[in-house]
Amino acid sequence: MGTVVVGFVPKPEGEAALKSGIAEAKLRGSKVVVVNSHRGGSEFDGEQATKAEQEMERIRKVLDESGVEHELRQLVRGFEPAEDLISIAEAADAELIVIGLRRRSPVGKLILGSNAQRILLDAKCPVLAVKAD
Amino acid sequence: MGTVVVGFVPKPEGEAALKSGIAEAKLRGSKVVVVNSHRGGSEFDGEQATKAEQEMERIRKVLDESGVEHELRQLVRGFEPAEDLISIAEAADAELIVIGLRRRSPVGKLILGSNAQRILLDAKCPVLAVKAD
Repeated sequence: MGTVVVGFVPKPEGEAALKSGIAEAKLRGSKVVVVNSHRGGSEFDGEQATKAEQEMERIRKVLDESGVEHELRQLVRGFEPAEDLISIAEAADAELIVIGLRRRSPVGKLILGSNAQRILLDAKCPVLAVKAD
Repeated sequence: MGTVVVGFVPKPEGEAALKSGIAEAKLRGSKVVVVNSHRGGSEFDGEQATKAEQEMERIRKVLDESGVEHELRQLVRGFEPAEDLISIAEAADAELIVIGLRRRSPVGKLILGSNAQRILLDAKCPVLAVKAD
């Protein structure tokens, strides 16, 4: 059974990645591994931890209802999210990584975030980039 | 029937995009539209045109043998390849765009090409980025 790895962030583009990752796993008869990673550190206080826990509960519910075999991982360990995602994808021999990208406004600058660029450049498997509806 | 649009370039990453685009179209029961675009201009002389024509023949053969419904377009009209690809994908109401990315060397700089960035940022549909084997 193959594995689709989803890079989740609690933003519209993260929701799009989750939805698309589930659909791709269904299409391929694969399981989905959702990775929610935080860098931790001083920004990550008690209130944020509670919020993150609620977020995890919600994602778990979405995954349970999808009917797709799944795994949910929350990582708080000080690495860049791109590194977490790539190392998990490699360990799982993933066939696909799904990430969400922000839309840019008509006058927005033409530059992808460094995490997205790193995943796109360094992942060994194909990367599906989706945007919020 | 859905449409998968492939951005082809005569390079290993372009071959990977072609192969992956055919596989994705099969998986989705969709047709594949392969776009081979050149900017034209002074760089594009008679010799290059002949080479491009041979390249088109070869791609056509790969597509014919794939058994997937397909369309092959060669564009030489002075636009950036990203614009060609995005406008074709929008006109076809594509469900997916497939592009090839170069691998970077271990010491390579962390930057995606401007065409790839533009497609990733501006495409309305999901974009699958693949690398050469």
